Amino acid sequence: MTAPQWARAHTNIALIKYWGKKDAQLMLPANDSLSLTLADFYTDTLVRFTDSIATDQFALDQQPITGQPLAKVTRVLDQVRQLAGITAPAVVTSRNHVPTAAGLASSASGMAALAAAAAQAAGLTLDHPALSRLARLGSGSATRSIDGGFVRWFAGHNDATSYAAPVPAAPALLADIRVVAVVFSDQPKAIGSTAGMARTAATSSYFPAWTQRAAADLHRLLPALTAGDFAQVGQIAEGNALAMHAATWAADPPFTYFLPATLALVQGIQVWRQSQGVPVYATVDAGPNVKLLTRAPHVAAVQHWLAAHFPTAQVVVTQAGPGISYYPAGKEVDA
Amino acid sequence: MTAPQWARAHTNIALIKYWGKKDAQLMLPANDSLSLTLADFYTDTLVRFTDSIATDQFALDQQPITGQPLAKVTRVLDQVRQLAGITAPAVVTSRNHVPTAAGLASSASGMAALAAAAAQAAGLTLDHPALSRLARLGSGSATRSIDGGFVRWFAGHNDATSYAAPVPAAPALLADIRVVAVVFSDQPKAIGSTAGMARTAATSSYFPAWTQRAAADLHRLLPALTAGDFAQVGQIAEGNALAMHAATWAADPPFTYFLPATLALVQGIQVWRQSQGVPVYATVDAGPNVKLLTRAPHVAAVQHWLAAHFPTAQVVVTQAGPGISYYPAGKEVDA
Repeated sequence: MTAPQWARAHTNIALIKYWGKKDAQLMLPANDSLSLTLADFYTDTLVRFTDSIATDQFALDQQPITGQPLAKVTRVLDQVRQLAGITAPAVVTSRNHVPTAAGLASSASGMAALAAAAAQAAGLTLDHPALSRLARLGSGSATRSIDGGFVRWFAGHNDATSYAAPVPAAPALLADIRVVAVVFSDQPKAIGSTAGMARTAATSSYFPAWTQRAAADLHRLLPALTAGDFAQVGQIAEGNALAMHAATWAADPPFTYFLPATLALVQGIQVWRQSQGVPVYATVDAGPNVKLLTRAPHVAAVQHWLAAHFPTAQVVVTQAGPGISYYPAGKEVDA
Repeated sequence: MTAPQWARAHTNIALIKYWGKKDAQLMLPANDSLSLTLADFYTDTLVRFTDSIATDQFALDQQPITGQPLAKVTRVLDQVRQLAGITAPAVVTSRNHVPTAAGLASSASGMAALAAAAAQAAGLTLDHPALSRLARLGSGSATRSIDGGFVRWFAGHNDATSYAAPVPAAPALLADIRVVAVVFSDQPKAIGSTAGMARTAATSSYFPAWTQRAAADLHRLLPALTAGDFAQVGQIAEGNALAMHAATWAADPPFTYFLPATLALVQGIQVWRQSQGVPVYATVDAGPNVKLLTRAPHVAAVQHWLAAHFPTAQVVVTQAGPGISYYPAGKEVDA
């Protein structure tokens, strides 16, 4: 047992989507996915193991959390305790710097920060693949938030082989890629990601083809990243996102996370890109909000276009971010 | 050579979509499809073979037609001439009773009426399967407009085996099924059906799964039709239409015929159906307009709901229609 430990992890946006599990117990995904870690959205988490309490405690943004979210935290902590050979419950104090207006899930950064802080607080020395596997137990997308930049989650075939690792990219691409989040709704989804993913995997006529498509997209994306070919990267990411949403549309019963505004933005950006040659591509997670991929010199034009066409949408801009970092015990961050 | 001959054929709406050819030359579709012939939308066509002209002439709604549409007419006429052993060019006079506001293609009724009138005018006695094969050479969906009610187009594997035939349905279902066409746009599509179909078949990750899905949907639909299980019919038709559009979304490059309003209507009708139990289901062809399937007692409620939620859309209601009919030569219809 060591000192309490703070860790910070950043959220990520997938360019090749994770959509469907092949093993819900081990949280093994049906396909490899690939994401970009984001600079401005992160979670700080403090973990302190102590025998002075009876069960794990979890507070997020100063609110005590119970039920299913606490169970996911405990799932990660249990694995840490097993690896460290300890039994003490933990006090977990977490603060999200992922504004709702970003339309980005905080579970990725939250579970990655938890894994890192808990391992450290338990006195474990885990490498990034091991931390990635640990984060996976809390949330699939958290697997990809241990490392910075572009990150690939290898689906694997058991707990040991399902983890993420950074992938090489042209430095110029990594330096000037920008993500413009366009938020239409911050309301809870009618169908949560876990349920939507499960329904797609179990019933969609297109699910087997989706996993093959994702694999093919990823193998085209890797060389585009190293070549720094942004247009290719954007096109592959956009096509992959639309294919993922097409798979939900062929589920039984069919469903979609798109709102009419989602479709209007995706169609509008495609027409604008084709007519004006602006390098901007859309990706959409399991929700109605759109994330636009562009490069630094075009951010202002994209913002201008959004203000003209979607004046009520909230817009947040960010860039590539780092992997996990630690704050010395005792040096409190603003949690 | 016999007297000039009028024929009338009605257009149809597919419940299991035709989307993709396996042989573009023979117009063989990738999958069986199933449609409902519609009462209020039809084409009247007069064919007269005469050696007094040099090449086929075609007038539609009193406008002379040339180019690609004329080439399709000639393709059908050539087959008729070959079967009849004649060489005379034909004068084709056609009138569409398919208002643009219906958002329904007139090529189905047009080519079916042409096939029937031309065969008769050439002195041929062809049964419905033979007429269906003839109509297929002009337009895929015309294959299904020779017969009335519910019609299945067998994809087949050559010219002889690719034709449509009526399928049995519960009389009560056939009597009170209604199609409510909701028209958002009567503008030409950015991507025509033939091109969209070809792009989907050639590039969509989901095309092979689409053809399997269509086959499975059709085999579930047939017993639902004979049982008169409208809810089941509607659900299968809606799911099949959405799966077809999902396949275009996974093409390269991805595309969709949906407008934001299309999505809003499909989503709105699903929510309304689930909350109020109104039996109304959506189907969408290769365009932005929606056709709602309902039963006679619910038409007024559907119209009321549409007026409240989509006040600017044009709405046309129709029901199951008959197969081809003939008008004696000399007794002119209002063409």
